[in-house]
Amino acid sequence: MTILAKYTKLREHYHRIAGAGRDPFTVKFDAMLSPTEGMLNGRRTILLGTNNYLGLTFDQSCIDKGVEALKSFGTGTTGSRIANGSYDGHAALERELAKFYGRENCMVFTTGYQANLGIISTLVGKDDLLFLDSDSHASIYDAAKMTPAQVIRFRHNDPEDLNKRLRRVADHPGNKLVVVEGIYSMLGDVAPLKEFAQVKRENGVYLLVDEAHSMGVLGETGRGLAQEVGVEDDVDFIVGTFSKSLGAVGGFCVSDLPDFDVLRVACRPYMFTASLPPSVIATCLRSLERMQEEPGLRTKLMANSKRLYEGLRNKGFQVGPDVNPIVAVSLPSIELAITFWNRLLEEGLYLNLALPPATPNSQSLLRTSVSAAHTTKQIDTAIELFGKVARQLNVQPALVQTAAE
Amino acid sequence: MTILAKYTKLREHYHRIAGAGRDPFTVKFDAMLSPTEGMLNGRRTILLGTNNYLGLTFDQSCIDKGVEALKSFGTGTTGSRIANGSYDGHAALERELAKFYGRENCMVFTTGYQANLGIISTLVGKDDLLFLDSDSHASIYDAAKMTPAQVIRFRHNDPEDLNKRLRRVADHPGNKLVVVEGIYSMLGDVAPLKEFAQVKRENGVYLLVDEAHSMGVLGETGRGLAQEVGVEDDVDFIVGTFSKSLGAVGGFCVSDLPDFDVLRVACRPYMFTASLPPSVIATCLRSLERMQEEPGLRTKLMANSKRLYEGLRNKGFQVGPDVNPIVAVSLPSIELAITFWNRLLEEGLYLNLALPPATPNSQSLLRTSVSAAHTTKQIDTAIELFGKVARQLNVQPALVQTAAE
Repeated sequence: MTILAKYTKLREHYHRIAGAGRDPFTVKFDAMLSPTEGMLNGRRTILLGTNNYLGLTFDQSCIDKGVEALKSFGTGTTGSRIANGSYDGHAALERELAKFYGRENCMVFTTGYQANLGIISTLVGKDDLLFLDSDSHASIYDAAKMTPAQVIRFRHNDPEDLNKRLRRVADHPGNKLVVVEGIYSMLGDVAPLKEFAQVKRENGVYLLVDEAHSMGVLGETGRGLAQEVGVEDDVDFIVGTFSKSLGAVGGFCVSDLPDFDVLRVACRPYMFTASLPPSVIATCLRSLERMQEEPGLRTKLMANSKRLYEGLRNKGFQVGPDVNPIVAVSLPSIELAITFWNRLLEEGLYLNLALPPATPNSQSLLRTSVSAAHTTKQIDTAIELFGKVARQLNVQPALVQTAAE
Repeated sequence: MTILAKYTKLREHYHRIAGAGRDPFTVKFDAMLSPTEGMLNGRRTILLGTNNYLGLTFDQSCIDKGVEALKSFGTGTTGSRIANGSYDGHAALERELAKFYGRENCMVFTTGYQANLGIISTLVGKDDLLFLDSDSHASIYDAAKMTPAQVIRFRHNDPEDLNKRLRRVADHPGNKLVVVEGIYSMLGDVAPLKEFAQVKRENGVYLLVDEAHSMGVLGETGRGLAQEVGVEDDVDFIVGTFSKSLGAVGGFCVSDLPDFDVLRVACRPYMFTASLPPSVIATCLRSLERMQEEPGLRTKLMANSKRLYEGLRNKGFQVGPDVNPIVAVSLPSIELAITFWNRLLEEGLYLNLALPPATPNSQSLLRTSVSAAHTTKQIDTAIELFGKVARQLNVQPALVQTAAE
C-alpha cells in the first residue's frame, strides 16, 4: 500500500472520466488568440469556461503596464510582504483597492485562495465560532480546517437556517463570523445578502463576503453583491481576487475594522509566502482602473450573460436560478455530461465539466462563464452547438430538463 | 471586544518594534536598481535580505521571455490548473523541472506556500503519521493543521530523535511521512540529510525534502541538498519554489511515485486556485535554464556567502553553524537587534529583523542573505557597516558573541 492508495477510488473515477475522451482536468491551451479564443490541439476554440469576466487579459494598457514593471522592477520580489516583498506597487494597489471600496484598510495576498485561507483562519480563534454556507468554496472550507474555532455549517443561501443556528449559541461568549459568497462559482446563484445582513445585525455578529465572482460584475461601480443590494455597511470584511475580473492572479481583503493592520503580523498565509511579482501588481492596478473607467464592460457582460442564459433555457436546458456570467447546464447523468462535454470540445467550444461530488446537490454540470469580450456571434454559436450536440446524442433538451428536475 | 482583541498583545509588541524607528515589517521599496540595490525613502540601499540567490530577477533573457509571454498570452489565465488554467508554458515548466530533477512527475503550484500546504496535507490522511522537524517553515506547520493525520514533531536536525519516535510507532499500520528542509531559512543551517535518509531507509517511511532555500544553491547541478550529499534516491518528494533562486513566484513538487498524478484531482491547494500568469511561468522556464547554463553563479554565490560569513565572524559576531547564503547574526537582546537593524538601514543596508517568538531558540537575529549578484565591494561594505554600528552602539562584537552564547 503506497501513501497514495487512499486515492485508488478517486483515481479509477478520474481515469473513467478521462478515458471517455479528452481529460477535462488537463486541457492544455497551446496559444491564446484573444480573451475568448484559444488554440487547443491545433483547433480554434471558443473559451466559454474562464473567469475572464471583463475580458481584460489582453487589454493593451494592462499589458503595457506589466511590461514596464517587468523591465523596471524585475521578474519577482523574492520575498514576503513582511520582509523585502513590498514595493511601491503593492502599497499602491492596497491604497487603490481601499479607495475603490471606500474602506480604511486593505491587504493584498499572493493568491485569492490564500486571502480566504489567511483572513478567515486568523480572524477566528479557538474561542470563536465560524459559520459557513454549505456550498462554500474550497478555500473557505480549508480555512475552516486551519482554524481551531468551532465550525458550524448552515444550509446554502438560507438566512433563516443561519438565524436559527446563531440563536442557539446566542450565549456563547466568543466572536462569531459568518462567511458567504456574492456569486457561487458552480451554479452562478447569488446569496440573499439583504437577508443575511439582517440576520447579522439582529445577532450582532461579523459578516465576511467573498466577492470573487461578483467584483466587476455586480453593483453600480462593480464592487459586487453588497453594493448591488445596498448592504455594504453591514459587511465587515470583503475578500476578492485578481484572477477573475481583474485578469491576473492574487487576492485581497478590505475592511474598516480598527487595528485591522495587526493581521500583517498575525496572518500566516500573508506573512510566509513570497509577494506577487511587480508586473502582476502593475497589471492589476491598471485593470482596476479600466474596470472603473469602462462601466460599459459590465453592461456588455450582463447582456451576454442574459443572451446565453435565455438562449439555453429556451432550448429546454436546465440552467441555474439567477442570470449571471456563470451559466451552468445541469444534465441528468455523469456519463451524459462527460460525452456532452467532449462533443462540444470537438465542435470548438471549451467550458468546464463539473461532476459530483464536487457539485451542489450532486448535479452533473456543464459550467459556462461569459465574458464582456464575447461577441454576440460567439454566444449564439455556443447556444447552437449545445442544441446540435443534444440532437447528435439524441437527447431532447426538454427531456434533459425533465430528467434533471 | 472586537474579533481582533485576541491580538492585543501582539499588536503592542509590534508597535513597540515599529515605534523604535522604522517598521521592519512594512519596509517599502520605491524602486529597484539591480538585484542587489533598491531605493528606500530616496536612498540607495544595498539589499542583503532577499532570497534572490542567483540574482536572476534582472536577467535580460528572463525579462524578455516574460514580456513575450505577457504580449502573446495576456495578463493571466483566469482559471485553475484543472479548468482553463493550463497553458503550454505550465506543462513545459513541469516537464523541464521533472527533467532537471530526473523524476517522472512534476506539479506546479501558484505559490511555494501552497505547494507545501497541498502536497503534505494531501499525502497524509487520517490513518497516517506526519513527522515534522520542530523548526519547520510555516507552510509545513500549516499543512499539519490541515491534515487529519497525527502530527509528531522531532527535535530540529536530530535524526536520532526522529529514529526514536519512528521506532515507537513501528507497529502503526498507517503511512509515515517525514518532512525536512534543505537549508533552514532563519539560521541557514543545513539538515543532516545523509543521516535522515538512513533513518528513512531503516524505518521504511516516506521522505519529503523542501529545497526552497537550497535549490540553485547546493548540489553539483543545483538540485539542492539531496544532490549535494548524494541521497536523492532516498527522497520520495522534493518541494521547491520559484521565488528564490528562480526569481519569480510559485512552487512545485517532483516525485517518482507511481500514480502521483492523482494528486491533480485530490490536492485542493492545487485545484482551487488560479494558475500562475503565463509571463511568470515564462520567466521561470528561462531562469531554470539560466541556472543550468551558468554553474558559475553558484560558485560566485558560495564565495560571497563565505566572505560575508567569515567577515562577520572575524569581527566577533555570532553567526549560524553553516556557511550558506543565509548568514544570521544573533544579538543578545530584542532591543539591541531592533536598534542595530535601524542603524544599518540608516547606513543604507537592508536586511531582515527576525525576533522571538518567530526564531529558533528565541534568538534575536539580523538575518542576511547573499546573492551571486553582490559585488565583493558590497559584501565588504556590509561587513564594515556591521562593525561601524557595533562601535556606534558601544557594543563590542566580541561581547555580542559572548552575551549571546
